[in-house]
Amino acid sequence: MQIKIDPILVERYIMALAAFGAHGETGVWRTVYSPEWVAATKQFAKWCEDAGLTVKHDAVGNVWGIHRGIAAGKSIVSGSHIDTQKPGGRYDGALGLLAALIAIKSLKEQFGRPKRTLEAVAFCEEESSRFPTTNFWGSSAVTGNIAPGQAETMKGYADETMADAMKAIGLEPARIPEAKRDDIETFLELHVEQGPILEDAGLAVAVVDAITGLRHYRVTLTGVQNHAGAFPMDLRNDPMAGFAEIAAGVIGTAERLGRPAVTTVGQINTYPNMPSVVPANVRFTIDTRHPDPAARMAMYASHEKTMKEVAERRGLKIEWEISVDHSPCISNPSLVTMLRDTAKVQGIRTLTMPSGAGHDSQEMEKIAKVAMIFVRSKDGRSHTIEEFSSIEDICEGIRLLAAGMYELAYA
Amino acid sequence: MQIKIDPILVERYIMALAAFGAHGETGVWRTVYSPEWVAATKQFAKWCEDAGLTVKHDAVGNVWGIHRGIAAGKSIVSGSHIDTQKPGGRYDGALGLLAALIAIKSLKEQFGRPKRTLEAVAFCEEESSRFPTTNFWGSSAVTGNIAPGQAETMKGYADETMADAMKAIGLEPARIPEAKRDDIETFLELHVEQGPILEDAGLAVAVVDAITGLRHYRVTLTGVQNHAGAFPMDLRNDPMAGFAEIAAGVIGTAERLGRPAVTTVGQINTYPNMPSVVPANVRFTIDTRHPDPAARMAMYASHEKTMKEVAERRGLKIEWEISVDHSPCISNPSLVTMLRDTAKVQGIRTLTMPSGAGHDSQEMEKIAKVAMIFVRSKDGRSHTIEEFSSIEDICEGIRLLAAGMYELAYA
Repeated sequence: MQIKIDPILVERYIMALAAFGAHGETGVWRTVYSPEWVAATKQFAKWCEDAGLTVKHDAVGNVWGIHRGIAAGKSIVSGSHIDTQKPGGRYDGALGLLAALIAIKSLKEQFGRPKRTLEAVAFCEEESSRFPTTNFWGSSAVTGNIAPGQAETMKGYADETMADAMKAIGLEPARIPEAKRDDIETFLELHVEQGPILEDAGLAVAVVDAITGLRHYRVTLTGVQNHAGAFPMDLRNDPMAGFAEIAAGVIGTAERLGRPAVTTVGQINTYPNMPSVVPANVRFTIDTRHPDPAARMAMYASHEKTMKEVAERRGLKIEWEISVDHSPCISNPSLVTMLRDTAKVQGIRTLTMPSGAGHDSQEMEKIAKVAMIFVRSKDGRSHTIEEFSSIEDICEGIRLLAAGMYELAYA
Repeated sequence: MQIKIDPILVERYIMALAAFGAHGETGVWRTVYSPEWVAATKQFAKWCEDAGLTVKHDAVGNVWGIHRGIAAGKSIVSGSHIDTQKPGGRYDGALGLLAALIAIKSLKEQFGRPKRTLEAVAFCEEESSRFPTTNFWGSSAVTGNIAPGQAETMKGYADETMADAMKAIGLEPARIPEAKRDDIETFLELHVEQGPILEDAGLAVAVVDAITGLRHYRVTLTGVQNHAGAFPMDLRNDPMAGFAEIAAGVIGTAERLGRPAVTTVGQINTYPNMPSVVPANVRFTIDTRHPDPAARMAMYASHEKTMKEVAERRGLKIEWEISVDHSPCISNPSLVTMLRDTAKVQGIRTLTMPSGAGHDSQEMEKIAKVAMIFVRSKDGRSHTIEEFSSIEDICEGIRLLAAGMYELAYA
């Protein structure tokens, strides 16, 4: 069985969708429920119709393109999110829904009607770029994990509520529960890698066996503000000295553990932030991830030990809150095996790797079997207009997705 | 010879001067040439007149109270600056001019006319709190170190020029050169310590044998911005990881060297400063000080080696500029010996220490022999409204200042 993916069509769809919210030469700025988002979802729906799929818009604005199977039973779904970073590139999210559509369209054209129902989905939101406290708004509606009243209280960066943003484009927040699905068996998501591992390995496509567990610490280290000249080192309680040791310590721990452990100190603010003043306090974040449940907890324990030890030795007050804490999402092992085997049959060389970034799949895992396919990112760049994946690599990824769907829905 | 210093007068002057620009319970906010500054200088001039001194206002607004000696010859001058931080306390600067006035007034009342001329001076500006690029504006006029046109180009935080600020209170920038003096033999400055060393030692007064050498590095460490989850540690060029090692390294070096070496990382800004993004760059300052010329240069060389080594090992681009670089100011050894001997005779226990902060004395050292007297600061606090020194400690300091002036002008 050989599936043909048309590279011309792939490029045309990618470029056309990127026109909605185009930002600079190669960027896209398309936040959920914005005018450019509305235009993009309409375009996606139109392409689904053109392919002969049944289109459904659900209560939160997710768009579904359905190719009914002959047999009854739960659906095989693929897709990703249609919103972007501010700005993001052309591929993050968008590629997943186009890949799903093109895979189903290609299967339909080449193999007709499947036994099992296939669906392509464009989730309305995943990036938290308009509403900082949401995440996976689209897939959370599908899994039934949006609480009553949440849309009314959730505030955007521009201070509007999610409910108002929905109403402005004709969606009714009270109807969100209608978006819940209990008839999805499998969710496959194709996404750009957003990292350099495939490029480093010289491969176009990966099968993702887990999405990493993630924890954010928000730490405040408080010392005593003093004069940078008149106060001797031995009498200081310098929170910057403590910060430096903690940051070097936790980063060093992740470096020693090696892949797939990562730890990042991306945000720091100090007060009063003046060259000649020993700071009063330093506030910073630690983003720390591991896809293995046990290794993750061991790494967090090590980080906490480092923080406590440094603070105590330097006479600093340390406080932290855990603002984000996601368990790893383990891909369905049978799906991973099926995708790896299918790739071999199709002559596609893959590696198997965890995802260091979060994805809709981890929300969908609550109601379905999930697995992901990664496509190589140039220089590992992501969340930037410089994000790039080649059409050749993308077609290899879609070919694997389509072949996987064939195994699940036709074979 | 016993000199009596009246603690009631000392307290009355301190509290009365602090009323000009009073800020909160115990603070003072009095920037150069402001209305409260004008009122404070008038009050100081009035007190000088009341004490029978001849008052002179010079071209930059320094106020001089002169007690003429019998013999011809250069003057013995004491004083400090009348401007403050935003806000500062009641003692930083103010105490030095009040101490000079009270010492001369006490000597005059108790010992009559001196052989040598004594002067008390209130320098107009030292804190850079209105004009960020000035420093020692008052004493620099006295030493002739204000360049022609400097007042016209120097901009304040509120964007006004120094020249306009001067004109607004009736001073003529073109006349600044007239403030230059070449008839000052000795400059003694009494100041609060601004650090905890006297308190730690259980002493009220110190003789200052040097003002520390000071260098500010402004450093930019540039790496590659990447996704905190998707980018493995071994492929990162993380400037925060480099910063942490550099900050821990340079602070650790000063800690190992011990007193009087100090190194402070007080300012840091990172871009984009987001929890889940490996930063593109980190900009930070290193304030590093040592009063010994050779030890200072050795410490700076060590810091630069640390910066280069870390940046190279982590594949980061490092750039720095040296934005401030002051050589140490060594007090006149005979003056230091005289003050220490005089303290012994007066029954005042002192220690001898360098100043970690900058002072007008280091500018005056260009034209005169200098030495300083420190008075104990509560908890070493400075540049805050919580700054405090007790009247008992202050009177001990003024008694030593007066006894030193007696040695130089009467003996």
